[in-house]
Amino acid sequence: MKKSETLKRIAIDMDEVMADSVAEHLARYNRDYDDNITKADLHGKWIWDVVSLDRHPRLEEYLRSDDFFDVLEVMADAPRVLRLLQQHYEVFIASAAMEVPTSFNAKYRWLERHFPTIPATNIVFCGDKSILRADYLIDDNPRQLRRFSGTGILYDAPHNVAVTDFRRVHNWLEIESLFLGKE
Amino acid sequence: MKKSETLKRIAIDMDEVMADSVAEHLARYNRDYDDNITKADLHGKWIWDVVSLDRHPRLEEYLRSDDFFDVLEVMADAPRVLRLLQQHYEVFIASAAMEVPTSFNAKYRWLERHFPTIPATNIVFCGDKSILRADYLIDDNPRQLRRFSGTGILYDAPHNVAVTDFRRVHNWLEIESLFLGKE
Repeated sequence: MKKSETLKRIAIDMDEVMADSVAEHLARYNRDYDDNITKADLHGKWIWDVVSLDRHPRLEEYLRSDDFFDVLEVMADAPRVLRLLQQHYEVFIASAAMEVPTSFNAKYRWLERHFPTIPATNIVFCGDKSILRADYLIDDNPRQLRRFSGTGILYDAPHNVAVTDFRRVHNWLEIESLFLGKE
Repeated sequence: MKKSETLKRIAIDMDEVMADSVAEHLARYNRDYDDNITKADLHGKWIWDVVSLDRHPRLEEYLRSDDFFDVLEVMADAPRVLRLLQQHYEVFIASAAMEVPTSFNAKYRWLERHFPTIPATNIVFCGDKSILRADYLIDDNPRQLRRFSGTGILYDAPHNVAVTDFRRVHNWLEIESLFLGKE
């Protein structure tokens, strides 16, 4: 019997689910523009809604710089819980990398370094996540979850606090509890 | 009504379907090793089955070189037929790019240059194509078609001549005929 016929499949987003991209984005912005914005200031908003892109053009540059995705911190508990998930589910990583085509190599390196148990066959760089055939998608972006055909799980992020149409998880311990029945 | 609810979705492989990678692979091999292998010599085989990789180590290097995917010829009629397909179907490009992670940037540039009507949202770099949610997949690789959950269409290639379990198309005119009812 093929593995894919027996195990449920979970697709997992990278940015703001596995990798703390908001922390690094804010750190670079605060350093360059001598400001002190925190995640709490982003409540219900994207960073672009809080500081104007016109007056802070480097905000976009950060995402395109070669080293941005290389240095991102791993979300707490993610490597351990992901390895456990792999024992009971088929796990795919699905990043909307097409939004920042310069990020392909750094994202791939980052996954190799921090999540070495994920085979290359199970990594997907895409744009519109409606293309994913999976039972679950864990993502911070409600727009992607609404397009997804399976069950969407919303990973808590400052910009999505007002979203109510998906089951919400706040961290990887809650992912562990939800999918592996642990408290 | 959303487009995705009304239109059937076709996923299309890049190498050996949109891009003539075998021609370039053979050209580089013949040049470097002073040989004269043609596509006809590959009947039923991959290039690795015809010339030993041990004695011709550059065979693998070609695929990893920065310029390999940049210079590939476009398959005849592909741009015109693809634009027509986009009027009647949702078209996604799905490349098993994870097999050669150094190819991401060149593959993306190649698509931008030769198929500018494909939005970045509809490009997928993956490994195992069972992750694709689409009605059809046009691919030269029977292994990928067997994993795919929709209807597989086999694009004719030297290595797959013995495969009989999929509808076969030999060129883009046959794709046009099959999906758009033109002879």
